[in-house]
Amino acid sequence: MPLPLSPPTYADRGVFVCFEGGEGSGKSTQSKRLTTWLASSSYDVVPTFEPGDTEVGREVRRIVLSPETGELDDRTEALLYAADKAEHVATLVRPALERGAVVITDRYVDSTLAYQGAGRALDVAEVEAVARWATGGLRPHLTVVLDLAPEAGLGRFAGRDRIEGESLEFHQRVRAAFVAMAAADPDHYLVLDARADVDAIEAAVRRAVEPLLHQAVRR
Amino acid sequence: MPLPLSPPTYADRGVFVCFEGGEGSGKSTQSKRLTTWLASSSYDVVPTFEPGDTEVGREVRRIVLSPETGELDDRTEALLYAADKAEHVATLVRPALERGAVVITDRYVDSTLAYQGAGRALDVAEVEAVARWATGGLRPHLTVVLDLAPEAGLGRFAGRDRIEGESLEFHQRVRAAFVAMAAADPDHYLVLDARADVDAIEAAVRRAVEPLLHQAVRR
Repeated sequence: MPLPLSPPTYADRGVFVCFEGGEGSGKSTQSKRLTTWLASSSYDVVPTFEPGDTEVGREVRRIVLSPETGELDDRTEALLYAADKAEHVATLVRPALERGAVVITDRYVDSTLAYQGAGRALDVAEVEAVARWATGGLRPHLTVVLDLAPEAGLGRFAGRDRIEGESLEFHQRVRAAFVAMAAADPDHYLVLDARADVDAIEAAVRRAVEPLLHQAVRR
Repeated sequence: MPLPLSPPTYADRGVFVCFEGGEGSGKSTQSKRLTTWLASSSYDVVPTFEPGDTEVGREVRRIVLSPETGELDDRTEALLYAADKAEHVATLVRPALERGAVVITDRYVDSTLAYQGAGRALDVAEVEAVARWATGGLRPHLTVVLDLAPEAGLGRFAGRDRIEGESLEFHQRVRAAFVAMAAADPDHYLVLDARADVDAIEAAVRRAVEPLLHQAVRR
């Protein structure tokens, strides 16, 4: 029996927000600003990230991103990221959503699809099936794509790890993948120009998150 | 698109032999004996094992088997084992088979299906789809199941790691799974009573391996 593609599911309690984008696009800045704003309004906010925000995830991240690992088989890499995702969703994301929290993740399944699928030799539909199995199909209510030409974002990071040491063409394919995913599901995506003013981006993110907060609890 | 179930494939060069069975069934003894016999006949022999016989595999094994890891989500565990398999097949098993070696592995996909699928809550067909994707469908030419009642094998190992600390019923389900897989594909399996004389088991294994050696090269 083939692995069925887990249908997309959206938590009916809590709010799941994801930031996606290339290196240097400002994901962590905007995650922090959204977290601060929601916390100041007494929401239960859980900022998190992939890969790595669990004990297992930290180990996986270390294996995948360390320059010492050397060449890693493409499927190995996709499966390690999927393991990180499974643990992240099961032990951190779902429990937080169930208690009504706003979970804000820096990267999620789309990063896997963009980096592993579009960027490397693997069939993206197969990578998606594995990643969806890992997460049980759980999707963010809103994914904010901070869109940036890789030439603009890569400068200060180049060569820092295995992923960021990839070619400019690799990062261009990654960017195109994020934009295509957003275009295919406009109800759940917000694409913003990452070169815009930081405050303006923050305001646009707040406007998109606000209508979702009826599912969130305040402390 | 669902993950298609990679069809079983058998290397057309080299010989791929696998030993499966529960704890204490004598897999490593028989692997060593078969290795010694083939090496003494000048075959290129590569003894190996899962999980763990690659750099990535050792890290994965450490994460999964360490009592310090604590509770691991079932999908996380299955995906970590699948990552180990992908790396093992891509970097060790396939290259050895391509040069005409006899690869003898202590555990392979069937262990994953038996332990993860039959032993835990996951759908075994889904675990199989992931494991087959990891290995590109590569199957052993011969899998030797050393069959043993878990009561007989567990004594000296009990509590040594997370897997072996499982209940007797768990290990009984694992045993039944190995036997069922062998029954479904008798051309590629040899089931032997692990309580038989060690020399008699060795001889039976040799008889099953000998007809496969026309695909193997001598040094």
